[in-house]
Amino acid sequence: MLRFSVNKSEIAKKISIASSSIGSRTVDPILQCLLFKPTDGHISIYGTDLQTSVISLVRVGEYEGNESFAVDAELIDDIVSNLSEEEVIFEYSNGKLLVKSGKAKYNISTISDIERFPIIEVDNGGVRFSIDTSILEEMLERVSFCASSESAMRALNGVYWEVHGGFLRLVASDGYRLALAEQKLDIDSEFDFILALKSVKELEKLVSSTTEPTINIVYDHSIVSFNAGDVTMVVRTVEETFPDYKRVLPKAFKTRVVLNSDDFSEALKRVMIISKRGNEKVQLKITDDVMELSSQSPDFGEAIENIPVTKDGEDLIVNFNPKFLSEAVKHIGEKEIEFNFVDNINPLQINPRNVEGYIYIVLPVRA
Amino acid sequence: MLRFSVNKSEIAKKISIASSSIGSRTVDPILQCLLFKPTDGHISIYGTDLQTSVISLVRVGEYEGNESFAVDAELIDDIVSNLSEEEVIFEYSNGKLLVKSGKAKYNISTISDIERFPIIEVDNGGVRFSIDTSILEEMLERVSFCASSESAMRALNGVYWEVHGGFLRLVASDGYRLALAEQKLDIDSEFDFILALKSVKELEKLVSSTTEPTINIVYDHSIVSFNAGDVTMVVRTVEETFPDYKRVLPKAFKTRVVLNSDDFSEALKRVMIISKRGNEKVQLKITDDVMELSSQSPDFGEAIENIPVTKDGEDLIVNFNPKFLSEAVKHIGEKEIEFNFVDNINPLQINPRNVEGYIYIVLPVRA
Repeated sequence: MLRFSVNKSEIAKKISIASSSIGSRTVDPILQCLLFKPTDGHISIYGTDLQTSVISLVRVGEYEGNESFAVDAELIDDIVSNLSEEEVIFEYSNGKLLVKSGKAKYNISTISDIERFPIIEVDNGGVRFSIDTSILEEMLERVSFCASSESAMRALNGVYWEVHGGFLRLVASDGYRLALAEQKLDIDSEFDFILALKSVKELEKLVSSTTEPTINIVYDHSIVSFNAGDVTMVVRTVEETFPDYKRVLPKAFKTRVVLNSDDFSEALKRVMIISKRGNEKVQLKITDDVMELSSQSPDFGEAIENIPVTKDGEDLIVNFNPKFLSEAVKHIGEKEIEFNFVDNINPLQINPRNVEGYIYIVLPVRA
Repeated sequence: MLRFSVNKSEIAKKISIASSSIGSRTVDPILQCLLFKPTDGHISIYGTDLQTSVISLVRVGEYEGNESFAVDAELIDDIVSNLSEEEVIFEYSNGKLLVKSGKAKYNISTISDIERFPIIEVDNGGVRFSIDTSILEEMLERVSFCASSESAMRALNGVYWEVHGGFLRLVASDGYRLALAEQKLDIDSEFDFILALKSVKELEKLVSSTTEPTINIVYDHSIVSFNAGDVTMVVRTVEETFPDYKRVLPKAFKTRVVLNSDDFSEALKRVMIISKRGNEKVQLKITDDVMELSSQSPDFGEAIENIPVTKDGEDLIVNFNPKFLSEAVKHIGEKEIEFNFVDNINPLQINPRNVEGYIYIVLPVRA
């Protein structure tokens, strides 16, 4: 038996967070469930897809009984988020869960063999460090969109974390482009690991939904845990080696262009109306203080735009996949940005003008 | 040659309305196009899927030249809706369309054999009548959701219009339920026709987007036209006979229940969390002044709710497809509604309590 009364928005929030780790194409019914487990005066809710586990603590006044139960995650999420009264009563006994709130009453089936529920244990022995929630949120936002979701190289289907020389670096690449964000941290150890893209997306949800100012991280080789107050995420790292990204960072630029990111995004958006119906290519033509953007489509015609820029160095004509430019500018999120070109073959580096710690690299395409 | 300058929001709105008639799975390229045609001091834009044509008049200052052209509807819609400056210049010559606005410039291919573009001519000889835009909007809203989108009976895949005894009646049914809305009109003629559901959806768009207070309708047997200011929709009717709907309207009610539609919708929404995982059935149990709603699912459990009601007549237990109840209550859009039951086999009639002119009929399902 287990019985507790809880505030509706508290339980709805905690169920929703724990559910986020659950895979959508699970075969084993126990992996579609959340485990509710009473521990030390509160209820812990566990959800997992075997790679990522989320544990959220629910603040309950008190509880009677000491049994755990597991219930379909989507169903219980659906139920609590549609309740209209503030107080919700959970009552588990003999394999049945009763959920009551106001005049609404649910008798829910639970799953029987809960000892099979996989709990990833967190070791207390790992390396501990912490980072401001808002800084980690921005770093993830600026990097994770570059990770591949379908590369044959498993190392690229995720985000690389490198702690080295007192810095945390996050790096992601799909082979055509690469993003790198770095931040000074108070840490002496040196280590690195890869988080799978799905784990990264769940971490992004955790980081953007928490009100905690700091994320506490424990690294223990194959397991990394992220804690934000009532919520802890435990992740198995990807056992692969990330490619040597430093080799692709361009040097010796011949053309530097400073531009307003809104001007560029607006012009690019209009040129992409043609490129998406054509060869998915945009030409940038930099002459003096003007950048001309253009696209062709054999069936539909052509689009031409131009924006004012400040240029140092040589004039240049170079082609890109427009999606790789628009996503970069969007995720940088700064008004003034720099385009640093080597030539029309080597990677372009894009970075915010006056902000340290972020670069984006993208390969040109042939004309 | 044809050249005109036009306000961006004016042209964007008119292109969007004319595009709404274009089918999404057209094989003939000319049916993916809008025809731009200069007539009597303005530009008319035509779009059609052969069953429904929309003609929208564009207010232009003046135009040079007198040629028509046809251009891909999605492309030109995409282009004008993404422009940022107020003034747009269209310049058509030698099969090419130039669209210019601010620093944006598009050279667009047009289609050559525009004499093939199908224009449905409106006859001036038909029966004319008119109806308040807001009344027609409400009637369509309350009826069209009942039309079938896939019935083997083509007559049910649309909305039946019956003008009889000085009333306009709109009726739609999918064989399991039926909705009927009526309105007194100033008209002596008697006639009826069926509009296909796709034409009805376009008419709903027209009616909800116009600022004109009145819709002017011309009925000419196989063709009906709807005019709202600058926009005219010309529709071919469906050549089928609508079933005799009057035969299914229930009489002699044994149980009448008055309830608050918000109470009912909220309770039903929560019970549907189980029914959608079970047998898609909700049981209503009416005893004295309480309606109990419940659903079962063999895998997930059961949900029970109850709401206060005012009852006249006998107690009753009856089952329904919950979707058919929730959609009805949503589309009636009134606070106080009546459920009029005959028994647990014959159709239930739902209607607003104090508003004339609308009834909804739905068949119970077996327990």
